[in-house]
Amino acid sequence: MAAPMVAALTFDVFGTVVDWRGGIIREGTRLNAEKGLSVDWAAFADAWRGQYRPSMDKVMSGELPWTNLDALHRRSLDQLLAEYGISGLTEDEKVHLNKAWHRLDPWPDAVEGMTRLRRRYILASLSNGNVSLLVNMARYGGLPWDCVLSAELARAYKPDPRVYRMAADLLGLPRDQVMMVAAHKGDLFAAHAEGLRTAFVPRPQADGPNRQRDLTPDPIFDVVATDFLDLARQLGA
Amino acid sequence: MAAPMVAALTFDVFGTVVDWRGGIIREGTRLNAEKGLSVDWAAFADAWRGQYRPSMDKVMSGELPWTNLDALHRRSLDQLLAEYGISGLTEDEKVHLNKAWHRLDPWPDAVEGMTRLRRRYILASLSNGNVSLLVNMARYGGLPWDCVLSAELARAYKPDPRVYRMAADLLGLPRDQVMMVAAHKGDLFAAHAEGLRTAFVPRPQADGPNRQRDLTPDPIFDVVATDFLDLARQLGA
Repeated sequence: MAAPMVAALTFDVFGTVVDWRGGIIREGTRLNAEKGLSVDWAAFADAWRGQYRPSMDKVMSGELPWTNLDALHRRSLDQLLAEYGISGLTEDEKVHLNKAWHRLDPWPDAVEGMTRLRRRYILASLSNGNVSLLVNMARYGGLPWDCVLSAELARAYKPDPRVYRMAADLLGLPRDQVMMVAAHKGDLFAAHAEGLRTAFVPRPQADGPNRQRDLTPDPIFDVVATDFLDLARQLGA
Repeated sequence: MAAPMVAALTFDVFGTVVDWRGGIIREGTRLNAEKGLSVDWAAFADAWRGQYRPSMDKVMSGELPWTNLDALHRRSLDQLLAEYGISGLTEDEKVHLNKAWHRLDPWPDAVEGMTRLRRRYILASLSNGNVSLLVNMARYGGLPWDCVLSAELARAYKPDPRVYRMAADLLGLPRDQVMMVAAHKGDLFAAHAEGLRTAFVPRPQADGPNRQRDLTPDPIFDVVATDFLDLARQLGA
């Protein structure tokens, strides 16, 4: 593929750059110890993430007005705390737990791969996470973004086409000079439909052992890479 | 002032972080040599910058639809090239000259000061420059932003109050935990009116010898600093 044509890489974040599931489990396990709880945080993490798509769908259908991901996470959290019968948390503790999504570890290859890629390409997030979540996460994990872009800026959640169009417009680039990097095929199909290039990094471990995800490369993908170091190699960075 | 309350610093860019005038003169002088021109680029730079406020006013009054700063700069450039009788430039050369605003050098203290400040505070641009201009400038000059925020994201130019409100909203902070840093008092008055804190860094040399600017500190400013190293010292970073 004509790598020199690409000027910027836009990254899906949850699952692609950071290990959301491991991070939530780690934060929850700490809370178990601090509060004497015995919550199964792997199950809790899966249930919390399970509310991700349905909660964004409520926004996109108009059932909810624009609501950023922190606020959607908090709605889901309150519901799950009730379902799990977890009642001993103060408001500050709930806020802190909700912000566990701001404190997710990058995959082991992510920072080094991005640092290499950044020498040659502009690197931007393009996540459904809100701007402050992405900024805090970048500071926490040392993610070297040139630019934090978020669905929040388009007031529409991926895979809405407006999100991908906005990214190319704000970066001042023709869409075929922007490459979407994601572990989720739906994100890449939507980016491709808007004229972006695509790089698939499957991250088979991203959603834990209980969720089946389609890891088969698709012929439309410009690049398929095992991790960000492999992506950097393939893109000449 | 209660520095520990502040969580993020938002920076005016042209004149506050980078030397726009020196950059335009440098790029123009290079063009003189390349094209055998004898343009007075100090005067040209002042005239180009002189169109900055009037061109944004046309957008804010509704005379022009939303137009980002690259496009406003280009309108002004085309007009000035005609006025100066400069006719030998190709379209690519005009595009390159217009993007001189993407290649402006940081003031000598800027990168070191920002690097110190970033240890303790979130650093975001809050400029009338468009996102791609700010991203390219940050890569050119090594500006360590956590987040590139721009008037373009609010589709309103400073000092419109929506720009300052947007910054606090996107950073997920109460407005009094955000401090606007600027060399221009009008920017700080507008930020203060929206509840942001303010830091004045006068940069007396920013607009060249021909423009008078009010450099007197105002009692409403939370901090007055001689440069970003002084700002870092005063803010405990």
